[in-house]
Amino acid sequence: MSADLMSEVSGRGALANIDGAAIKRAMAAVSTFEVRSLGLPIRNGEGPVGPRRQPPQHFMVRDGGDAAVAPARHGFSFSDDVLLIPTHGTTHMDALCHVWQDGTMYGGIPADLVTSRGAKRLGIEEAGPVVTRVLIVDAVPGGRPWLDVAEPVSVDHVRSLLDAAGLAPERGDALFLRTGWVDAWAAGAQNQLGWGGLDVDAVDWVLESGFSIIGADNIGVEMAPASDPTCAVPLHVRLLRDHGVYFVELLDLAGFEGAAVAGMLTLGPLNIVGATASPLAPVVVF
Amino acid sequence: MSADLMSEVSGRGALANIDGAAIKRAMAAVSTFEVRSLGLPIRNGEGPVGPRRQPPQHFMVRDGGDAAVAPARHGFSFSDDVLLIPTHGTTHMDALCHVWQDGTMYGGIPADLVTSRGAKRLGIEEAGPVVTRVLIVDAVPGGRPWLDVAEPVSVDHVRSLLDAAGLAPERGDALFLRTGWVDAWAAGAQNQLGWGGLDVDAVDWVLESGFSIIGADNIGVEMAPASDPTCAVPLHVRLLRDHGVYFVELLDLAGFEGAAVAGMLTLGPLNIVGATASPLAPVVVF
Amino acid sequence: MSADLMSEVSGRGALANIDGAAIKRAMAAVSTFEVRSLGLPIRNGEGPVGPRRQPPQHFMVRDGGDAAVAPARHGFSFSDDVLLIPTHGTTHMDALCHVWQDGTMYGGIPADLVTSRGAKRLGIEEAGPVVTRVLIVDAVPGGRPWLDVAEPVSVDHVRSLLDAAGLAPERGDALFLRTGWVDAWAAGAQNQLGWGGLDVDAVDWVLESGFSIIGADNIGVEMAPASDPTCAVPLHVRLLRDHGVYFVELLDLAGFEGAAVAGMLTLGPLNIVGATASPLAPVVVF
Amino acid sequence: MSADLMSEVSGRGALANIDGAAIKRAMAAVSTFEVRSLGLPIRNGEGPVGPRRQPPQHFMVRDGGDAAVAPARHGFSFSDDVLLIPTHGTTHMDALCHVWQDGTMYGGIPADLVTSRGAKRLGIEEAGPVVTRVLIVDAVPGGRPWLDVAEPVSVDHVRSLLDAAGLAPERGDALFLRTGWVDAWAAGAQNQLGWGGLDVDAVDWVLESGFSIIGADNIGVEMAPASDPTCAVPLHVRLLRDHGVYFVELLDLAGFEGAAVAGMLTLGPLNIVGATASPLAPVVVF
Repeated sequence: MSADLMSEVSGRGALANIDGAAIKRAMAAVSTFEVRSLGLPIRNGEGPVGPRRQPPQHFMVRDGGDAAVAPARHGFSFSDDVLLIPTHGTTHMDALCHVWQDGTMYGGIPADLVTSRGAKRLGIEEAGPVVTRVLIVDAVPGGRPWLDVAEPVSVDHVRSLLDAAGLAPERGDALFLRTGWVDAWAAGAQNQLGWGGLDVDAVDWVLESGFSIIGADNIGVEMAPASDPTCAVPLHVRLLRDHGVYFVELLDLAGFEGAAVAGMLTLGPLNIVGATASPLAPVVVF
Repeated sequence: MSADLMSEVSGRGALANIDGAAIKRAMAAVSTFEVRSLGLPIRNGEGPVGPRRQPPQHFMVRDGGDAAVAPARHGFSFSDDVLLIPTHGTTHMDALCHVWQDGTMYGGIPADLVTSRGAKRLGIEEAGPVVTRVLIVDAVPGGRPWLDVAEPVSVDHVRSLLDAAGLAPERGDALFLRTGWVDAWAAGAQNQLGWGGLDVDAVDWVLESGFSIIGADNIGVEMAPASDPTCAVPLHVRLLRDHGVYFVELLDLAGFEGAAVAGMLTLGPLNIVGATASPLAPVVVF
Repeated sequence: MSADLMSEVSGRGALANIDGAAIKRAMAAVSTFEVRSLGLPIRNGEGPVGPRRQPPQHFMVRDGGDAAVAPARHGFSFSDDVLLIPTHGTTHMDALCHVWQDGTMYGGIPADLVTSRGAKRLGIEEAGPVVTRVLIVDAVPGGRPWLDVAEPVSVDHVRSLLDAAGLAPERGDALFLRTGWVDAWAAGAQNQLGWGGLDVDAVDWVLESGFSIIGADNIGVEMAPASDPTCAVPLHVRLLRDHGVYFVELLDLAGFEGAAVAGMLTLGPLNIVGATASPLAPVVVF
Repeated sequence: MSADLMSEVSGRGALANIDGAAIKRAMAAVSTFEVRSLGLPIRNGEGPVGPRRQPPQHFMVRDGGDAAVAPARHGFSFSDDVLLIPTHGTTHMDALCHVWQDGTMYGGIPADLVTSRGAKRLGIEEAGPVVTRVLIVDAVPGGRPWLDVAEPVSVDHVRSLLDAAGLAPERGDALFLRTGWVDAWAAGAQNQLGWGGLDVDAVDWVLESGFSIIGADNIGVEMAPASDPTCAVPLHVRLLRDHGVYFVELLDLAGFEGAAVAGMLTLGPLNIVGATASPLAPVVVF
């Protein structure tokens, strides 16, 4: 593609659909002023993290012990620390440079632009901040604690819960689905190799509904292993790569059992230049 | 202090003053639906970072080059990466465990609880998410590009700008001050050893105004070096330690020259258990 | 202790016993000129590592993929990388600052000197390089593949093997014992919580033999769990802390089944200032 | 190249020339039994490191402060730590995968084998341990403290010093040259962008002399900037890539002013699988 065409592709992707009306709709969803973070705890040496990723490491470089053994003259002291974290190693938002098919990423931008020095285009810094309405729905049916490994989310089930709650998706909304995987992982019932989530039959509904963002309390939003034998993450290709829909993964959705609710969602991805994702703590106001 | 007393101290500190009315006030400050991140870019090997801290490092563990030299059979591939960052090494919010005086942190909690394994109390995970009104004021007077090193912000100047804009601080608000230091640093005019900011004469005004959060586009919000010869960061002691006022530092306030404006601020600190701060990208809606 | 006394304590510890005669003895042990590294492979994300430690991480920051997608004009290119490793996270030598009892390390030096900024005394940089004779003995009796968890090495067995080989320990020698734990770990038969090794009954023999260094193919040289209910690592206290005997752990002793051999050992610990250990690849010439 | 041919290329490169006779020669060079490490200190946050590399970071994860604020019941405690280091970020040996020309590395092996997961061939783990004779020569003439930036080492000067000392290079030897750059860097007189070292006119002499290893107290052994406008490191191409000569860089050669001496050198590169170099502390016995 020509340099001119390439510069015309916006890294906002489907986030561009979040206009003033969408933000107004988000604010209108606020009623009780309850504020909730959907970010998982980040603990030194602990997961959950996906395959080939290592858990975060948290290094203290100054602490109370230092102050105790070498007290400051005037009584003041402080602590300081360093974090090592896979950008996908806790609650995070994928950048549009995260996946590609046949050599091109979203908007036809070549994957060759993603090198050891980071992504020259579509890094997470191009996502920008997000304020929009989120619909949070429990996709686990029938009082079970979690979906099985590779159990598809039923779109009909999700739609019926939304209908019952009087909630209709609108262009620019976010959809967060509870699959129970984080709970299954914590309970030792499932591991980082498989989980329930969206299957390819959900693609059309996600697009028709106009969701700018989809998220879940698992590693991929879509289920794993996938039903497509030729691609491990077909929804990443058909939604993120083909349409710029952003994915938010490893959400903390504890407490949303049985829920179908709306709130005002704010996402502040770190401006990590050229990164394939950003850890973040999504904030929802109900 | 007894274990009972200690468990009664809330890590929310002054954030507890942000009630439903404060959130409603934040939402009322929204008019144009412009959404802005105040997070600085995070670039591999680049600052600004404070003394004794190293710049962030960004490691790609899978990229387009890998896919080019070993193409996948079905054309799908992806990128992945890891971030190493001082928690205070870009735009961030300090935890209440970050500073102490005479062995005790906020609420009288002993600094001995902060060890190489992190803070057992008052880590950033205790801050929780924040939605409140923010007042953003340019503290650099007279068309100058930035404050001098160790130049105190004039409280009178800030108040007059707020007055002129018809803005009155209310309990639970955040105050973000533009000092120009990030610009001075980028221009090579100042370094990580000194900057303009709040001086001790601002303490009473901050407390009387009821600010839950103060922030600036410099390393410490307060000026450096400090005017107090016995303490490098007296405002951290008198505001964060004594009153639980949260500090947000290294803000990106480019574009706020001459400003005195209000907006809806959302902070989603990462839930890094036991950490002394969290990198974050504050999101403001105007 | 006074500053004067403290500066008199040598960080070489028992290595000070390695004199010219000991080096001459090491060289005299060389016969076939076979050179062997006893350093385990260091692989990204893989152990073995001890409890509370994370596996090494290896980050490529420039590689062949980068060169493939953005070829250099004149055809030259290169690769580069970064290593994150616990200093005890592969084959390594403990520093004398690694352990203490009742607040003091080797030579009576206070443990308070070991802070978040590293050890002000007895860091691994004080060990210096080592050339001495090593006796390598298979401590696993009777054709078994490895010692059981918490199975003590029999000093009688080791001595009889040495006797049979005509080898008598001399002051300044190193002793490396094969316990088989690395093999047991690789086979999934034992984990990072227990292994066979020296028990407290070996302390007198080690000291009387004049060993400056003891090593093994397990995490602690001494067995785990220990037979002493009050101390997890009694030999570290009685040998390293009390007498400055250096410990080399996680050796690669594959191929030494049934062996009792001598060689010339060279250790080049990295000069990591203030570190509690150094990864290294011991080199033996037979 | 075919898989068969590729597997025939030895990662030892020119180290294969170090035979029993070479090791015997190394041992014969020992006279005073003085043992010396040539590894630079590794200090948290300090260089020297080359362009685009960050200084090492040293994190304490357990220390005397922790023990002071939470004493163990039976008085035993310990320290532990983690090291982050560019493999070329202190004294180190380059792997044969470090450089290539026109897409191929040493032995014609494709650079495509070097990806984000490391080098599948010619990683530092293929170097193996080294014991050989080293000739250490001060290449700074005339009592000056260091070579100028881009000042070529005079081969005639080096040869005349060796001649005067009665030392003749033999096949398999190592050559370590003092350029003074580490001193110039410490003095603030030169930076990481330039130094004196070998120029292309030294290539033939190095090859004819049969050196398996060349080293220096600068970042590249060869001088920088190079005299070749089409290649930043022509000696890396013509010696390491074309002939498998190993490079050891950032040596600590303090004390070798005016020297032309021989000793027994031992190199124990860490077995970092797929790495482009290994930090190490070369050990010389005189």
